[in-house]
Amino acid sequence: MTESWQVYLNENQERFLSEYLEFLRIPSISTDPDYDGDVRKAAEWVVERLQRAGIEKAGTLETVGHPVVYGEWLHAPGQPTLLIYGHFDVQPAVPVSLWDSPPFEPVVKDGKVYGRAASDMKGNLLLPIIGCEALLKTRGSLPINIKFLFEGEEEIGSRSLNAFIKEHQDLLACDTVISADGGCGSEEEPRVTTGVRGIFSMQLNVKTANTDMHSGAGGGIAPNAIHELVRILNSMRDEEGHILVEGFYDQVNELTAEEKEQIAKFSSFTETLKKTTGFKEFFGEPEFTPMERGVARPTLEINGIWGGYQGAGGKTVIPREAHAKITTRLVPDQTPDQVRELLTEHIKKQAVRSIEVTIENGHGANPYRVPQDYPQLLTLEKALEKATGHSVLHQLSGGSVPVMSLFKGLLGAETLTLGAAMDDERAHAPNEFYRLSNFERVQKVYCLFLQEMGR
Amino acid sequence: MTESWQVYLNENQERFLSEYLEFLRIPSISTDPDYDGDVRKAAEWVVERLQRAGIEKAGTLETVGHPVVYGEWLHAPGQPTLLIYGHFDVQPAVPVSLWDSPPFEPVVKDGKVYGRAASDMKGNLLLPIIGCEALLKTRGSLPINIKFLFEGEEEIGSRSLNAFIKEHQDLLACDTVISADGGCGSEEEPRVTTGVRGIFSMQLNVKTANTDMHSGAGGGIAPNAIHELVRILNSMRDEEGHILVEGFYDQVNELTAEEKEQIAKFSSFTETLKKTTGFKEFFGEPEFTPMERGVARPTLEINGIWGGYQGAGGKTVIPREAHAKITTRLVPDQTPDQVRELLTEHIKKQAVRSIEVTIENGHGANPYRVPQDYPQLLTLEKALEKATGHSVLHQLSGGSVPVMSLFKGLLGAETLTLGAAMDDERAHAPNEFYRLSNFERVQKVYCLFLQEMGR
Repeated sequence: MTESWQVYLNENQERFLSEYLEFLRIPSISTDPDYDGDVRKAAEWVVERLQRAGIEKAGTLETVGHPVVYGEWLHAPGQPTLLIYGHFDVQPAVPVSLWDSPPFEPVVKDGKVYGRAASDMKGNLLLPIIGCEALLKTRGSLPINIKFLFEGEEEIGSRSLNAFIKEHQDLLACDTVISADGGCGSEEEPRVTTGVRGIFSMQLNVKTANTDMHSGAGGGIAPNAIHELVRILNSMRDEEGHILVEGFYDQVNELTAEEKEQIAKFSSFTETLKKTTGFKEFFGEPEFTPMERGVARPTLEINGIWGGYQGAGGKTVIPREAHAKITTRLVPDQTPDQVRELLTEHIKKQAVRSIEVTIENGHGANPYRVPQDYPQLLTLEKALEKATGHSVLHQLSGGSVPVMSLFKGLLGAETLTLGAAMDDERAHAPNEFYRLSNFERVQKVYCLFLQEMGR
Repeated sequence: MTESWQVYLNENQERFLSEYLEFLRIPSISTDPDYDGDVRKAAEWVVERLQRAGIEKAGTLETVGHPVVYGEWLHAPGQPTLLIYGHFDVQPAVPVSLWDSPPFEPVVKDGKVYGRAASDMKGNLLLPIIGCEALLKTRGSLPINIKFLFEGEEEIGSRSLNAFIKEHQDLLACDTVISADGGCGSEEEPRVTTGVRGIFSMQLNVKTANTDMHSGAGGGIAPNAIHELVRILNSMRDEEGHILVEGFYDQVNELTAEEKEQIAKFSSFTETLKKTTGFKEFFGEPEFTPMERGVARPTLEINGIWGGYQGAGGKTVIPREAHAKITTRLVPDQTPDQVRELLTEHIKKQAVRSIEVTIENGHGANPYRVPQDYPQLLTLEKALEKATGHSVLHQLSGGSVPVMSLFKGLLGAETLTLGAAMDDERAHAPNEFYRLSNFERVQKVYCLFLQEMGR
């Protein structure tokens, strides 16, 4: 039996795709102030899209940073309330030269959409909206109460969301949160995400002098800011990937045998990642498998570095300053505050020779785990089983969704994940893409999940 | 008794300054192809200036790179021939934001000229031309035969000059070379340069994958190009500044007690450098004094580094590639070829995990020393004593003048140095300047030196 919402979905896919492409054309890069207007434009686009779907009570709400989009449909008395979370901001697209087509001019090819935020997460954001639209247009109502909360700062650590949720605890009150920022496996191998890593990000600045020096005049006499930065960075991780910051692993829970077994089921991911990105050998703590390291161990990565002369040819200069951007991924029970302290202490110890070292923009999010026996986790599994005919695996994600621990702490609600992204879709990297087959399939899963929750 | 050329110099200073400022306004940056036209413009400017001085036979000559300027006055039969060397190319001026005034819009303030190449070496290049002009306009002839050779590639390792000199050995034949690229101390403490360090420059590229990765997905699984670069760079120098490249010091001559004594006379330079550039503590091999390290010990310095995200905010990316620019300064009997080999071997050993490592643009120059008993060195000392009334110190320079070893090897001539630059004038750095008092003084020294050589 084909349900009427299913027919509705089938009949409207062309329009859904064209809306998705329109959404992708807005360069809503939250990290760069030059794009502030585009982040707002994306917010307004989402509000209109919600309204078109039949979520009449929808609008933007201000924060100290980028605006938030809120919408609600609360006409199912006695039924639970689901808060649907997502973000409409995107990562920067630099270096643009590595893209095969311009990052903000999406291209459809072989059933895939290529463009910045195709996978993370403008396609995903549309899934619950389309699901609600299909139910509303065919049944006239939704089986449960729904609230939408879409932010514009996920890619910069959801900076304003903490204060925003605190201020709007009544408005956002709910029984369960579902995050559309992620995936749910393939049709053959459906998955639910039961945990994400936390994160702590910072910029490290080293200054050794007031002016650059000629390397002929100063070489052998003066400190070099790049060398000092290199020395500090090298002191933070050993050649095998062990993090050398004192106390860094103290709060890390040991992996149980059961966890290791669950994680091992996903080890093909690491092989796929290797193949699609072209690195030659796995890297990380040899006591753990690549998959264990990728989802259940903390990491420290330099995301960017710069100092001195970067132009064509050479310049014989001893640079006065050098900089690095660093993120660490955290696992239970690490916290960003604790990690900030440990890193700060480590870096200060390395700052010999009276060099000036500063840490900027240190912010982060706690790691998060869904309790394995959480009832709505079971509901989501049922919907996925119904949609695919396969049993569902429990998966940990190596990424971070900062809001999960926020929702738990401020709203007392657990967060599930339901999106259509796959791990190989080059999120945050050039030539990011998204599979239209998953886009269609997970619209359907949303309808099934809402129905299941309403039973 | 005031000589007539002295009167001529005094009467024309205003014009000389305005010519100098005009010359500084040409951004003849040799390292960046965008400025190729300006390097040529600077060459043509120098040709005209030579002709105005009375050096009628002057013109540009082509090389595979930037053009060379050649000029001659050979009407002193029986007298020695002096080849005057200099360069009209300049270092890049980035970061321009650190300059108090635009680098190519020179400003005169408190007897100093501020601008890129003010000190290195557009003021210096004019000194011998002005000296010859004063003698020609007042005596009608020069006391010796003069050849001028000005290149446009000194700041990029004099790449084409080797081939150029080889091709033009007859044209350039001479008894002695004098390089205007340097200084001769102050009026109170005149100096002659008796040696320069050699140099080897290269760019190191590290590649770990074909695409950048999301640090949530790849963190703990994939290698990070910046970390690999940092590890390699850190392996090259220890915390005290000792270079850890195997065999690097094998060809380095021990300093004699006499050399150490001569060097110690200049130790105030290191204190001045510290004060003017604002670094807090000296850096380098603790077995040597800062001044010994600065002029008579080899160095290895990272001049630039870049990779990953450098923009505002953060980007949670594992970068696929990272780069560094490196120069080493060499002392007798090191050679750039030998150092290239040692560095290449060292870097290859560090390139574990099948990461791709490449070395680009490796080029350099030998170190050079003038024999302490070279007769024309004495002549130069006499001219300086006459001009200042003080006895002259022998000085080693920490910088590199690649052509010195070329002239020795290809023309069989020793190279002396006579310029008006001072060590604290921020050559290669923002807010470079030059003292007009020295500019005037050393014009006179050139006249005295040519007269002395003609005796």
